[in-house]
Amino acid sequence: MLDINAERLLSDLGELSAIGQFRTGVHRPSLSAEHLACCRWLMDKLTAAGLDPFMDGIGNVLGRSTRPGQHLLAGSHLESQNHAGRLDGPLGVLYALETARALQEQRPGHAKGIDVAAWCDEEGHFGSFLGSRSFVGQVSEIEIDKATDRTHGHTMRDALAKAGLAGKQRLTVSLERYLGYFEAHIEQGDVLESERLTIGVVTSIVGLWQYRITFEGVQNHAGTTRMAIRRDAGVALARFMGMVEERMPTVAAERTVWTTGSITLDPGAPSIIPGRADMMFQFRDADPDVLLRLDKALMAWIAEADRIGPCRVSAVNLRKGVPARMDPSMQAAIEAAAQQHAGARHKRIPSGAGHDAQILATVMPAAMLFVPSIGGISHHWTENTEDADIVSGGRVFAAAAGAMLGL
Amino acid sequence: MLDINAERLLSDLGELSAIGQFRTGVHRPSLSAEHLACCRWLMDKLTAAGLDPFMDGIGNVLGRSTRPGQHLLAGSHLESQNHAGRLDGPLGVLYALETARALQEQRPGHAKGIDVAAWCDEEGHFGSFLGSRSFVGQVSEIEIDKATDRTHGHTMRDALAKAGLAGKQRLTVSLERYLGYFEAHIEQGDVLESERLTIGVVTSIVGLWQYRITFEGVQNHAGTTRMAIRRDAGVALARFMGMVEERMPTVAAERTVWTTGSITLDPGAPSIIPGRADMMFQFRDADPDVLLRLDKALMAWIAEADRIGPCRVSAVNLRKGVPARMDPSMQAAIEAAAQQHAGARHKRIPSGAGHDAQILATVMPAAMLFVPSIGGISHHWTENTEDADIVSGGRVFAAAAGAMLGL
Repeated sequence: MLDINAERLLSDLGELSAIGQFRTGVHRPSLSAEHLACCRWLMDKLTAAGLDPFMDGIGNVLGRSTRPGQHLLAGSHLESQNHAGRLDGPLGVLYALETARALQEQRPGHAKGIDVAAWCDEEGHFGSFLGSRSFVGQVSEIEIDKATDRTHGHTMRDALAKAGLAGKQRLTVSLERYLGYFEAHIEQGDVLESERLTIGVVTSIVGLWQYRITFEGVQNHAGTTRMAIRRDAGVALARFMGMVEERMPTVAAERTVWTTGSITLDPGAPSIIPGRADMMFQFRDADPDVLLRLDKALMAWIAEADRIGPCRVSAVNLRKGVPARMDPSMQAAIEAAAQQHAGARHKRIPSGAGHDAQILATVMPAAMLFVPSIGGISHHWTENTEDADIVSGGRVFAAAAGAMLGL
Repeated sequence: MLDINAERLLSDLGELSAIGQFRTGVHRPSLSAEHLACCRWLMDKLTAAGLDPFMDGIGNVLGRSTRPGQHLLAGSHLESQNHAGRLDGPLGVLYALETARALQEQRPGHAKGIDVAAWCDEEGHFGSFLGSRSFVGQVSEIEIDKATDRTHGHTMRDALAKAGLAGKQRLTVSLERYLGYFEAHIEQGDVLESERLTIGVVTSIVGLWQYRITFEGVQNHAGTTRMAIRRDAGVALARFMGMVEERMPTVAAERTVWTTGSITLDPGAPSIIPGRADMMFQFRDADPDVLLRLDKALMAWIAEADRIGPCRVSAVNLRKGVPARMDPSMQAAIEAAAQQHAGARHKRIPSGAGHDAQILATVMPAAMLFVPSIGGISHHWTENTEDADIVSGGRVFAAAAGAMLGL
């Protein structure tokens, strides 16, 4: 089996967390100076670990091993959400790096190896999983032409040119090289913490279905228009949202989650009755049948609200994400490693968040390991995990990876 | 009695509507080139009508008569909401102008006269009734220093300087000069139209109470946070809004109106549970006791929602507008004129919208006359009134003004 150097792992995490530091977290948007500094830091470490690093034309870093056999692809991402945590992404890259070093030190002659990856833009500054989707061949040049930063509006082409990556080759997967993909991540929820567990064995990554629901009424003066004749799109939205919150539990499964993340009233002035209102509504579940059932229910509620009036109600589906099942034998390897190295304080759980593993899972066996998030907090600079849990997670990751490599 | 020249009135309206035309309406923000062109147009007409025009340091135009007796102050405003109608404001100015001309032509020797006013920024591009409030002495230099355009953000000081008004005297009311203020306006509602009436005798201008209601929950990841532990500020807002819509009819009076004009979820991203939500909520009524009762009920509902949780709920009152009662004897004069010149197709109604008359009413007797709005539409370029109703309104206005002047 493989074992990690805990001190080196925590020291690496400290170095990486200092790049683009923001309070106790980091601010490292995709292709920003800080993100690129992290990529260079990683490439130096990969070289030192005996791997051959390459940064490709979309900002992916891949450290390739020169071993003759099949490889385990392992990693995560280095950029962050704006003003967010230091572990979301980097932890998975550091576990992969440390495991590759352990393999180099402890089993130099083993035929099978590890390739270490840091996918660009998992956090979606420019698009949706652009780096890992490019690697599996799902991103066209046209998609990159159109991609702009959601915070500042600059184009991805400009950002790539500034990073010296314009015109550089984009790496794509060679399927015969890889036996599977393995990614570690913080849970970003509170299941492990609340049950005093240290390892989550991910069973699947949930599918996310996203809708824009639109209410069309009549815009008018808020002082002169009698209540009886109003067709207020904002009121229609609030009533619909209340109804959805009441009815969702009757059709949802145990772990389904649903969220209205944004609401826009048009024109949005205090003294004008909104003529139009939009809400962004999503639900997530690991079971495709549940997703279909929820979609059917939502469409029926929308038709009902439209029929009752007084506003027209319609919806556009923006995303129908397929749940990604994690590979059963890789799950078993993680579970066995947790049994041995984490006092059996593990549990099989689905991932409610999206990860690059769901993209890799479309072309090869994939697996994920979770460590606890303190207070379940993520996408915020206060995001954190106990050092002991970070080390324990690294041990289980390396042991499971070793098993996947036949050690 | 005084009578108008209907052809001249409609011709003036045509000339004025061509300045800053937008589709069938106009786009004339306060102190824009188009608004200033209207002011110059008016000043020429005032001079021709034998009045002495002056544009003051806040953009008010006042055409003063030279008659020795007391005066009726009459007018409205010339700027528009963005891309809005041609009648909201200009109609009242044109009625005042035409009535002043009728007085000049038909009663040149009468001691009492008419001053014609076009108040700047009734539509609130820079503030709240800045022109008429300046005229009654309610606007400090500091308030003007701070005023910025709500659409483009430029300062009122810059706009005044560009208009050549920097440092110019601001006119203030001399109370002994005026026997009262008289303003005509489109109804902006559908009461007159739906009852096939042509004249509204305004009894009062409603008081407007405005609140920002805030919901504080916990921001978190929309995929990883279980439904059971969420404190979603957006859901709390929607539930509260549904409750308010249900309960308001039980405490409101017959003509009370209430509106949620804008909603903000923070941070407002599809995959983030809103940690904070704000709604702008207002109600309006002509009865001070009703306003107090509604405020008390709203505060109780907010306390109840805060107690029940899971989000904190609080409110800030942004405005407690006092209803403005119109002068009874001036109302009687309008009613008598409508009886004689509009076939008694008139009705006493409150104004749900705010008008400069409510500002003038704080220092002198004030009255308003309404003409019908087609479809009740206003603050939109499709706003309109039948020519026959425009002429009939002008006749009643002039006749009532004549009566107020003792003719």
